[in-house]
Amino acid sequence: MDRIPILQMGQVLLVTIQVDMQDQTALALQDDLANKIATSGAKGVLIDISALEIVDSFVGRMLGGISGISRILDAVTVVVGMQPAVAITLVELGLSLEGVRTALNVERGMELLAQSRKGNLFAR
Amino acid sequence: MDRIPILQMGQVLLVTIQVDMQDQTALALQDDLANKIATSGAKGVLIDISALEIVDSFVGRMLGGISGISRILDAVTVVVGMQPAVAITLVELGLSLEGVRTALNVERGMELLAQSRKGNLFAR
Repeated sequence: MDRIPILQMGQVLLVTIQVDMQDQTALALQDDLANKIATSGAKGVLIDISALEIVDSFVGRMLGGISGISRILDAVTVVVGMQPAVAITLVELGLSLEGVRTALNVERGMELLAQSRKGNLFAR
Repeated sequence: MDRIPILQMGQVLLVTIQVDMQDQTALALQDDLANKIATSGAKGVLIDISALEIVDSFVGRMLGGISGISRILDAVTVVVGMQPAVAITLVELGLSLEGVRTALNVERGMELLAQSRKGNLFAR
């Protein structure tokens, strides 16, 4: 099982990352998300990483890549559920997740996406 | 990584099953869900199994178990995203998922939960 399911809820696509990402899985996820945004017209992507105990530079790059692809396809990406220890390690490693928006949990992420659609909080 | 994350969205808990379930994982999920329903007061549980290509009697029993536990804790469980091939195999195997409600996808599952809270569609 090497494809991560993408759940659609209205204008938002939700992805829960539960497995340690391998290159193949990450590339497949990027592909699938890009296609799903294009076919569904979704305006937001929520990526839950609460199950991840380690976020290394590879995963960081992948999150950045997904954010970039979504942005071009006119969707906003929010990464939610990061464990406090992961945030600490990221900063210690000097990985700042440039261009990746974050929120505490799915609910806050949803609020952020709703605001971004109403106002223009995400002017680029 | 042997715990499946549970996402809370308002009154609904969402679980995406992506890995082949082992006994340990299934038991941990049941425990976690029961605790989360109790602490959050959630009224609905959505379990997405779109990533599963095989649902055997073990997984079927687990889904039934979760439904039963949720019911006692006053929450409704809906299993969503079942692949057509899985449904065909289940029937061929004579596994009918007794007591487990299903919906085509997360959106329909959400609607079902909303209705169940409004009316009394799920009178027991």
